[in-house]
Amino acid sequence: MTSSSTIVTAAILAIGDELLSGRTRDRNIGHLASVLTAVGIDLKEVRIVADEEEAIVEALNALRSRYDYVFTSGGIGPTHDDITADAVSRAFGLPCEHDAAAMKLLGDMYAARGLEFTEARQRMARMPRGARHIPNPVSTAPGFIVENVHVMAGVPQVFVAMVEAVVPTLRTGATMHSVSVASPFGEGDIGTALGAVQAAHKATAIGSYPKYDGKSFSTEIVIRGRAVEDCEAAAEAVRAMLVEIGERKKAAAAIMEA
Amino acid sequence: MTSSSTIVTAAILAIGDELLSGRTRDRNIGHLASVLTAVGIDLKEVRIVADEEEAIVEALNALRSRYDYVFTSGGIGPTHDDITADAVSRAFGLPCEHDAAAMKLLGDMYAARGLEFTEARQRMARMPRGARHIPNPVSTAPGFIVENVHVMAGVPQVFVAMVEAVVPTLRTGATMHSVSVASPFGEGDIGTALGAVQAAHKATAIGSYPKYDGKSFSTEIVIRGRAVEDCEAAAEAVRAMLVEIGERKKAAAAIMEA
Repeated sequence: MTSSSTIVTAAILAIGDELLSGRTRDRNIGHLASVLTAVGIDLKEVRIVADEEEAIVEALNALRSRYDYVFTSGGIGPTHDDITADAVSRAFGLPCEHDAAAMKLLGDMYAARGLEFTEARQRMARMPRGARHIPNPVSTAPGFIVENVHVMAGVPQVFVAMVEAVVPTLRTGATMHSVSVASPFGEGDIGTALGAVQAAHKATAIGSYPKYDGKSFSTEIVIRGRAVEDCEAAAEAVRAMLVEIGERKKAAAAIMEA
Repeated sequence: MTSSSTIVTAAILAIGDELLSGRTRDRNIGHLASVLTAVGIDLKEVRIVADEEEAIVEALNALRSRYDYVFTSGGIGPTHDDITADAVSRAFGLPCEHDAAAMKLLGDMYAARGLEFTEARQRMARMPRGARHIPNPVSTAPGFIVENVHVMAGVPQVFVAMVEAVVPTLRTGATMHSVSVASPFGEGDIGTALGAVQAAHKATAIGSYPKYDGKSFSTEIVIRGRAVEDCEAAAEAVRAMLVEIGERKKAAAAIMEA
């Protein structure tokens, strides 16, 4: 389901007190951001909220009405602080129920392992009525999909597996191509000229990323665009700009020495 | 300016296409989250938006009206894609101008280094009229403060230095204490009992964080609260719960073997 001209947008909603307290450094956002970019879905916004139903409902409703897809991570485990299923249900005005297929899936798995299918474990079968499953090859308990919202686990290994399952089902748009050009000069040296290159290459978005090695700044210039040829043309202009700046600096240094 | 009973809240707004494309993995959010928690400021929400003025203005206005402090990262460099100063000015309805003190600071620095104070470099002196500076010991160009909004650089070394400068000036609330208890059992084994412990210790928030080592799940249980004694009491109850679960599992295994 790919089109070369459409733009498909997405948002990520990461849920969890541990992300906001600094106890856990998020790894899921960066992973999904890379995957979405690779398949041609534009990630437009990320939010991180606490394990609070009100906060989740509000963020989810804001994001799902605005973007083609929303992906959530976290809060679908078996403990009392896992309230994502309830919050998503409330956001959609749907009852949150023990899904029959998920109960069977989990019940069979725990029976095979000789483990009790506790009340806590049964919580992992709860989802909004009518939700579709996202398979979980790591630990069985499924994620779920309601309309354009994909609800996935927070544990990185499970999140990655769920992303892998979900991506082939998504409508994708034109892939964003990118070309990177390394500049030995800092942004202050190149800024004005780079702005002129951007103005002359409006089919691309030219980003400038300063790097600091503890002593001096260099810059990575990233040109992004839907068409490879537009990116290449802009990259050529950036390279020519860097050569010119280098020569100007050399000439200035020679004058200083003379 | 510390009070032991007040709650002080904050949000982070990270700005940059590179964070949404997956090209750059954010390091600033986790750092500031840890620092805020340590000094007693509750980070309640994080948003990441693109280098788009409309998106920045909207997110900033939503966050600054809702939380005591907002901290932004990114978009205050010298290149055309650095539009945070303009966006913050627009959010506050203030003109965005070359700040005289910042012009002097930067002009002197470049003069001392024998570098031209280019139009691009002068962009780094732009800020909303009347903004106060956040010092930048790494590369001079200041961040700035307007009301409750602190605008900081995206380059991690500069961000960290600005955070260090800003934190002592903030109003802080009661520190959140936390006690961590390692559970060798997965969430499915402990979920129901842990929910009962949470219900009996309402002065604390008990978080449960599953870990997966590729074969089985264990859990880290984190008890957070404003009073150390509340956290300790809840931790004691959690430890007793784990002992009981362990004994029950041992008895069940013995029955299986018999």
